[in-house]
Amino acid sequence: MGIVVQKYGGSSVADAEGVKRVAQRIVDAKRAGHDVVVVVSAMGDTTDELIDLAEQVSPLPPPRELDMLLTAGERISMALLAMAVGNLGHEARSFTGSQAGVITDSRHGKAKIIDVTPGRIEAALTQGAIAIVAGFQGVSQDSKDITTLGRGGSDTTAVALAAALRADVCEIYTDVDGVFTADPRIVPTARRRERISYEEMLEMAACGAKVLHLRCVEYARRYDLPIHVRSSFSKMPGTWIADPEAGSEDMEQAIIAGVAHDRSEAKITVVGVPDKVGEAARIFEALADAQINLDMIVQNVSAAATNRTDISFTLPRADGQTAMAALARIKDEVGYDSLLYDDQIGKVSLIGAGMRSHPGVTATFFSALASAAVNIEMISTSEIRISVIVDETQVNDAVTAAHAAFDLEAEQVEAVVYGGTGR
Amino acid sequence: MGIVVQKYGGSSVADAEGVKRVAQRIVDAKRAGHDVVVVVSAMGDTTDELIDLAEQVSPLPPPRELDMLLTAGERISMALLAMAVGNLGHEARSFTGSQAGVITDSRHGKAKIIDVTPGRIEAALTQGAIAIVAGFQGVSQDSKDITTLGRGGSDTTAVALAAALRADVCEIYTDVDGVFTADPRIVPTARRRERISYEEMLEMAACGAKVLHLRCVEYARRYDLPIHVRSSFSKMPGTWIADPEAGSEDMEQAIIAGVAHDRSEAKITVVGVPDKVGEAARIFEALADAQINLDMIVQNVSAAATNRTDISFTLPRADGQTAMAALARIKDEVGYDSLLYDDQIGKVSLIGAGMRSHPGVTATFFSALASAAVNIEMISTSEIRISVIVDETQVNDAVTAAHAAFDLEAEQVEAVVYGGTGR
Repeated sequence: MGIVVQKYGGSSVADAEGVKRVAQRIVDAKRAGHDVVVVVSAMGDTTDELIDLAEQVSPLPPPRELDMLLTAGERISMALLAMAVGNLGHEARSFTGSQAGVITDSRHGKAKIIDVTPGRIEAALTQGAIAIVAGFQGVSQDSKDITTLGRGGSDTTAVALAAALRADVCEIYTDVDGVFTADPRIVPTARRRERISYEEMLEMAACGAKVLHLRCVEYARRYDLPIHVRSSFSKMPGTWIADPEAGSEDMEQAIIAGVAHDRSEAKITVVGVPDKVGEAARIFEALADAQINLDMIVQNVSAAATNRTDISFTLPRADGQTAMAALARIKDEVGYDSLLYDDQIGKVSLIGAGMRSHPGVTATFFSALASAAVNIEMISTSEIRISVIVDETQVNDAVTAAHAAFDLEAEQVEAVVYGGTGR
Repeated sequence: MGIVVQKYGGSSVADAEGVKRVAQRIVDAKRAGHDVVVVVSAMGDTTDELIDLAEQVSPLPPPRELDMLLTAGERISMALLAMAVGNLGHEARSFTGSQAGVITDSRHGKAKIIDVTPGRIEAALTQGAIAIVAGFQGVSQDSKDITTLGRGGSDTTAVALAAALRADVCEIYTDVDGVFTADPRIVPTARRRERISYEEMLEMAACGAKVLHLRCVEYARRYDLPIHVRSSFSKMPGTWIADPEAGSEDMEQAIIAGVAHDRSEAKITVVGVPDKVGEAARIFEALADAQINLDMIVQNVSAAATNRTDISFTLPRADGQTAMAALARIKDEVGYDSLLYDDQIGKVSLIGAGMRSHPGVTATFFSALASAAVNIEMISTSEIRISVIVDETQVNDAVTAAHAAFDLEAEQVEAVVYGGTGR
């Protein structure tokens, strides 16, 4: 049999018991005849604790040193995991990102993987050992400094290693039982997806589904590598993320893959922008200069009487202050009237490749929201997604109504919520 | 001015405040015009906490993985220290043992330094940066695996780096104000030595003085590198460890350098060993096979009537069980009568290069002990040292009496005891 790459998040190895439970899973895969490579995150809250220490020492830690600090977290979890596997009678060797050949650019804190040269991993596998690799970290090509990949980086490490090793599958173990048609904490009868396409999963992740990070799904799609998302706390079969098999008529292909929601955004409205060429561009330039990623953007029709228009957009709440300050600086230059800021919003998205060929989806979605008395503040659509911004207090109602309208319910409750997420 | 290597122990960087205080010291040295290289241990109890975690996961952790785990400790402290220095307006770059070029053999947990190739450190210094290096760790020459140097390893890292960089001095910052004529917790009037020779310091360290580890003093002597021991908690001038300056008549050369004591040993007596050629050798072979380092060895004169003799020796208490078991296994073969084990002992040693030319030292020492009603159980001597084993409860009396008998008292109390020791 071939190579299996398994990734375990921080909540799966939060304590010694978790480490031992994960070790047993790893040994099970080894005994089933696979060559096993494991990518592991830092234990539980380790990363947050280290960041806290850094803040006690310096208000603005140099990124190189912050990366050096944070990578201590995986060093601890991977060594403990290797010990626990050894205890079960199988040799395991731990490797830092650098030792595993994870080569990145030099952007500390959000480095991109440039290349993976897993020579030491392959040697360990050849010798019958299990390789345990630190997630989230690499070494920069130019300066040979230690880098981190940013949040979600461990998933990306796992997928990148799996691609470089030509693994059969990358198994991502997390604290949920797979990808569901909605967050089971909101919709208890949400149905587990047995399979979902890269394209749908990308939209789900972009719209707030926290199971997988966008970046790791993109990486997997590029290398056509199947991802299998499973819980490390149960034996549930999880969800496969892969393209529909060629030639096969995928019976599972539903109209709607799921309903995602996101409470992490805020909405800014620039009121009374003079309706002249270039004014909107000036606003978005200022936001781009401030390194702010916008999500949805809506421009109202200009009121004929005033020749002025309103521009609204959503952005990560964490960037709210920066964005407001950047816009305030160009008030006189642009000549708008005022700024409105609202962080009591939520985004609810309907995702499904099937909606391409089903024109009634939008109507069904909106009438379900109307029946649930949910007021829509903004709308944006793509070919396989419809997103709406609603009041934060109405997010749960909107998710529940949409989920019911498209008959996504499972026959019985199948989701278990374990709480916490890794990085 | 030249290169200064500074080493800070775990108690000096036990928390964020300690890290900031040490950063200020480092910047002071940089502002005085030196190129500064800093070697740092893990914060406070980090190493013990990591060992505790390992024990929760595995009863006998593989040494390779234990080293991977423990080296996370210095990674945290060095990154924090670099951040704190950066905060004071000077660039600092942290380096792992591997990045600093500390090449070792492959004996995990007690690796020996084979070579130091500090190219990246030199580059950092050339660029005006302060280099912060992880103590206690290196990378093995053969397998490129992460190794640790064992307890006291950070001092050795500092001295080895200083030698490789041809530094002017290796400053070891610790939690005591220098080397004293006796432990100030026992003798409050103990005098700080302004200077002590390598030879005397080696004997002091071997006899229980905890200021410096034997290994780092040996390394410094081999490279003729001056060590300056100072407190990181005070501005006291500390103690220089170096050979007496050539040609100069060293006025400070006292008859006695100091009184050391050690409560970490146990005594085993093999009773009734047949007085035949080879019997003693058999006993010491068995102990050597069990990897036990003996300290003092005394063989009584054979009792003519029985042709049997008693052999007593001291060893680290931690090895007591192993040694007793090894001896029990050869009881029939050797034919001795019985074994006695005593761990309620202490060793008191008088050390001084001056005693070579002062024949009365032994007499003065023993009569001082007699006046203090201290009973001597074993004696061993070298050219510059006299050690006695006494009952553990009499160690303080013996140290005090010896210290007084050789007029070692300072005019006033000058020692401050801060508690705790790094590694």
